[in-house]
Amino acid sequence: MLNVAIVGASGYTGVELARILCNHPEVTLTMATSRQYAGQPLSQVFPNLLGKTDLLCQNPSLEELCQSADLFFTAVPHKTAMDIVPQLRQAGKKVIDLSADFRLRDVAVYEQWYQPHSSADYLREAVYGLPELYRSAIKESSLIANPGCYPTSIILGLAPLLKAGVVVPETIIADSKSGASGAGRSSQVGSLYCEVADGFRAYKVGGSHRHTPEIEQELSVLCKKDVKITFTPHLLPISRGILSTVYAQLQPGISAAMIQDLYNEMYTDEPFVRILPPGSLPATQYVRCSNFCDIAFSIDVRTGRIIVISAIDNIVKGAAGQAVQNMNIISGFAETTGLEMAPCFP
Amino acid sequence: MLNVAIVGASGYTGVELARILCNHPEVTLTMATSRQYAGQPLSQVFPNLLGKTDLLCQNPSLEELCQSADLFFTAVPHKTAMDIVPQLRQAGKKVIDLSADFRLRDVAVYEQWYQPHSSADYLREAVYGLPELYRSAIKESSLIANPGCYPTSIILGLAPLLKAGVVVPETIIADSKSGASGAGRSSQVGSLYCEVADGFRAYKVGGSHRHTPEIEQELSVLCKKDVKITFTPHLLPISRGILSTVYAQLQPGISAAMIQDLYNEMYTDEPFVRILPPGSLPATQYVRCSNFCDIAFSIDVRTGRIIVISAIDNIVKGAAGQAVQNMNIISGFAETTGLEMAPCFP
Amino acid sequence: MLNVAIVGASGYTGVELARILCNHPEVTLTMATSRQYAGQPLSQVFPNLLGKTDLLCQNPSLEELCQSADLFFTAVPHKTAMDIVPQLRQAGKKVIDLSADFRLRDVAVYEQWYQPHSSADYLREAVYGLPELYRSAIKESSLIANPGCYPTSIILGLAPLLKAGVVVPETIIADSKSGASGAGRSSQVGSLYCEVADGFRAYKVGGSHRHTPEIEQELSVLCKKDVKITFTPHLLPISRGILSTVYAQLQPGISAAMIQDLYNEMYTDEPFVRILPPGSLPATQYVRCSNFCDIAFSIDVRTGRIIVISAIDNIVKGAAGQAVQNMNIISGFAETTGLEMAPCFP
Amino acid sequence: MLNVAIVGASGYTGVELARILCNHPEVTLTMATSRQYAGQPLSQVFPNLLGKTDLLCQNPSLEELCQSADLFFTAVPHKTAMDIVPQLRQAGKKVIDLSADFRLRDVAVYEQWYQPHSSADYLREAVYGLPELYRSAIKESSLIANPGCYPTSIILGLAPLLKAGVVVPETIIADSKSGASGAGRSSQVGSLYCEVADGFRAYKVGGSHRHTPEIEQELSVLCKKDVKITFTPHLLPISRGILSTVYAQLQPGISAAMIQDLYNEMYTDEPFVRILPPGSLPATQYVRCSNFCDIAFSIDVRTGRIIVISAIDNIVKGAAGQAVQNMNIISGFAETTGLEMAPCFP
Repeated sequence: MLNVAIVGASGYTGVELARILCNHPEVTLTMATSRQYAGQPLSQVFPNLLGKTDLLCQNPSLEELCQSADLFFTAVPHKTAMDIVPQLRQAGKKVIDLSADFRLRDVAVYEQWYQPHSSADYLREAVYGLPELYRSAIKESSLIANPGCYPTSIILGLAPLLKAGVVVPETIIADSKSGASGAGRSSQVGSLYCEVADGFRAYKVGGSHRHTPEIEQELSVLCKKDVKITFTPHLLPISRGILSTVYAQLQPGISAAMIQDLYNEMYTDEPFVRILPPGSLPATQYVRCSNFCDIAFSIDVRTGRIIVISAIDNIVKGAAGQAVQNMNIISGFAETTGLEMAPCFP
Repeated sequence: MLNVAIVGASGYTGVELARILCNHPEVTLTMATSRQYAGQPLSQVFPNLLGKTDLLCQNPSLEELCQSADLFFTAVPHKTAMDIVPQLRQAGKKVIDLSADFRLRDVAVYEQWYQPHSSADYLREAVYGLPELYRSAIKESSLIANPGCYPTSIILGLAPLLKAGVVVPETIIADSKSGASGAGRSSQVGSLYCEVADGFRAYKVGGSHRHTPEIEQELSVLCKKDVKITFTPHLLPISRGILSTVYAQLQPGISAAMIQDLYNEMYTDEPFVRILPPGSLPATQYVRCSNFCDIAFSIDVRTGRIIVISAIDNIVKGAAGQAVQNMNIISGFAETTGLEMAPCFP
Repeated sequence: MLNVAIVGASGYTGVELARILCNHPEVTLTMATSRQYAGQPLSQVFPNLLGKTDLLCQNPSLEELCQSADLFFTAVPHKTAMDIVPQLRQAGKKVIDLSADFRLRDVAVYEQWYQPHSSADYLREAVYGLPELYRSAIKESSLIANPGCYPTSIILGLAPLLKAGVVVPETIIADSKSGASGAGRSSQVGSLYCEVADGFRAYKVGGSHRHTPEIEQELSVLCKKDVKITFTPHLLPISRGILSTVYAQLQPGISAAMIQDLYNEMYTDEPFVRILPPGSLPATQYVRCSNFCDIAFSIDVRTGRIIVISAIDNIVKGAAGQAVQNMNIISGFAETTGLEMAPCFP
Repeated sequence: MLNVAIVGASGYTGVELARILCNHPEVTLTMATSRQYAGQPLSQVFPNLLGKTDLLCQNPSLEELCQSADLFFTAVPHKTAMDIVPQLRQAGKKVIDLSADFRLRDVAVYEQWYQPHSSADYLREAVYGLPELYRSAIKESSLIANPGCYPTSIILGLAPLLKAGVVVPETIIADSKSGASGAGRSSQVGSLYCEVADGFRAYKVGGSHRHTPEIEQELSVLCKKDVKITFTPHLLPISRGILSTVYAQLQPGISAAMIQDLYNEMYTDEPFVRILPPGSLPATQYVRCSNFCDIAFSIDVRTGRIIVISAIDNIVKGAAGQAVQNMNIISGFAETTGLEMAPCFP
């Protein structure tokens, strides 16, 4: 059994990690940290976990923390992560970091969108934890930068098209819609039930959302040149789920059959990507509580555009589930271990 | 007092018409037709109307119908409308038709997207009932083709830009999200609570939604040339509201200040269009149950695109409210009569 | 025109008062106070009000406040109200207080459930603002204690039965369910979208909710003896609405027809109470955004119990709407002025 | 591996059975019947199952059906069940019936609440499938009448109290609230998103809901005398979940500590009943997608009543999950097999 710890267990990513890990047959969850709830049972903070774990939330010293486990999930805000992750690495621990701090390879880009980076040395060591693109590198790594939720949905949707060069990269527009859990569990007026329910809005419009450089970094790798995209996030009145509707101009002469082949080729053997049968379209409710990414596309022959639609559960494939998938790869477990449950519908 | 009738009162547009009309100081609602509920009080079909109207649903003969009122709201499905509207017009009645049957000026386009048109003669007579574009024509008309919900949100959002020629029309993409009332009140599995709630999906992707030609017709008028756009509708887990996120490439040299001026110029005196102050973005919950269309824009300087966001209540400004606004114009009432209530939030 | 002010405009009751008052033909809203948002347009705090009011939120001195209006709605938390209300009264202003501070006639009871009362003198002056019970006293009063939301729904549901003595008071159980706006707009984890949505829970079970003594006070008046009830509040995943299901043992020999008569007798002329036709049951969505209280009952002949069900919109009839109704009565306006709109459904 | 079949796979209970069974390590799902969708992949009807099962929906002959499996879940409406279940039993198959047809031991009671019973002989054979009460009988049985959703929540909540005789049975009132999946997947106006969302209502008030006799049957067994209760079901705007608030008068001299002991005693070793720690209250979101029943109680010392609150996921512990639990018991599998996942929150 592998001993694992969750650093920052009191957010929605933390509870989802706990939910998955406490049923994972190859690991023991030995530590859940939370300053705010230190001393309380984790199952009191999140009563869904009652009977599944007896762990108390703790606020351990670094030494206690390091002794508690061999692999760490750091589910803390960016900036906090860049403080704790190097310490865990120096203690020889494997780390799967769910913050943004180690996702951008270029420290200048990071500092342009976030703030100064105090642990830039670790950027080279970190592997971007999208198994569908970087599985072999993940396997060899001890520091995984677990991808953002929006980037996961958009990159998986576009990857086969960009690798094959069948769309014009400059025309990419990603219109994404996320459930409210993406805003986290901090108490702010904008996240109140009455502000979100029965409503819908865009936010950080016009290229200002911090996931933009992360998306562009990976799309640029895929099409082997610098790409700038337009990305618009929206807030859905649901708890879980991201659906991205991505637009791009097709190169001349590209048919639907060719596109279908590209998707099948890249994803047929992927355990967590489902290319939908023609005529079907993704919906967030069909991936709810699962690690699946569902993808479909449609060609608008009137305008020559392709519309790619992808759906994930933002706290599973967009966060905790993908983190466990990465742990499975690193640890030599079957990649789907602990992530087999079918999505919950309705 | 003007006597008015609702033909097809048992749908969500019907109940909203009744809600507005029963409080309108200049009209008397004298007839509400429904085959399915004939003989039942309208307030039994829609208990929110209890105490506000004593009307019984009826299934009248044409003669009875014509005698009941001077102005008719036809809130029936397309194809049904093209049967009833000519009869009402021949009886000298004013008609505000909420179906798609008289919105497209070119019968060939109509027949390509719908089915054969049996009353094509009336297309010339009909005026497209978007007051912000056609107010003076509406005033003179006796047959109003009340706009579709998606088209209302998209056309109002783009009109100032297209009139001024500041965007490249070929690059327009409209990513729209609608509440479930847009699918009507017919009982189908896809509209069940458990299928819609806590979920999100796209539908009729790739240029196949029937509002596409209606949007393109009006955008083409505005920019004085044929425009084809990509339009993607989505289904939101809310009852009321449409938010459209519209993308277009800006012409060179266009600044945010110039755009702001264009919006202010066109809409400052419009009673139902609110251009949001800079930094604000529309949300469906802020127009809920009102006839407002809220609009804001943002420029993505990294890609040279403008993103226009508009929000309406799909059954008010997108249907019943706009129909009453048209009635007010036709009838010489103050245009805002009966439509003054502020949106309900939360 | 009567000048009116809202003290504490940044909560959900505040915005609803503003929504109603800015369309009320007899009043001018001259002041909206908010410490937190002082200097901001009220329509920036609540964008639904854009175009309906130009008021800036203010944090005025007492003198400025008193000069701003003749009638004040105090929509501040209990304890804060008992500080400000006496000052307004001493300045000769009429006050409709939406807190709990002046609802309980017995200061000892107040102090048992809340905290020490610093303005107990005003308890005698205050009239409990439930027009269906105290209309004539309200008319003469200058200080209205606007009822709580749960009490409004429960008292209106039970009043005819208790006045007529047809149920056993000791057997009353009120199982009430409220939308999330009842918890207010303060940012706390328990009110976050993800904590409330797609879920349901009871809270303050076992007689510990502070509305209990208020309900018991009024029920005791109605049946002319001290009554203790069991009251259980629940949190619904909706924004607006309270539905109370109230149980009581019927006295022997009481028939459904007799009960129906009692309800009709008491409420037939009430503009805001709708006794549903037999076979119909209230639903919160049928009173949404309106000042109606819908009531129906059913007799369980197998057990001899009556089940009374009442529904209100908690921030209209349960707060802001009832406050405006009280203002109308005090001010000699038609009681329904500004409150005529039919409920919004769907 | 045990071969199992779902008869009636196209409802919400059907899809949940499939979701659980396709991940159950001891069984193979070999047949899913649906007249309506015969020939279609089950994963096309319920896209959440894509990649988890390749089964086609079928409309098999009885012979084909019997050959397909050894244990059958009949998830068809009552009356349909009483036709198919005897045929499966005659073929020697084990049956877990999720309809109401074999739950009531007294055929006269069944016929009073439903319709004539054509297979009354099987009532004696059937065991009421509530493992917490009938585990040893279930183990020996080949025909399980899987309990109703409301009864499961109410009976589990009251059982320790009634067995110990600490409440007055005649005073029991069960106020229950269910999510919309309880109404099934048939297309009817009352189940549409816009009718259910953002609203709340009671239905079948006054002792008319068909679960009443089922509840009373089991409560009567527990307290060893005939009990009549008042039961009021309500419709929540959520997909999954039932919360029951149950009231009863305590016998004199019963303390909270005694009650706590009764609950602990009965349920400590139960894998799917969680007695909450004092101060905690159940919520449907904490049992979502799990087989848990969460229970807490509170004593209203002012009135001498106990309030018991229980929460389940109506399509798991209230239907499909409990059915799999029963299958596990019958088949000698560990009782929790396939049902281990922690509830999904948020």
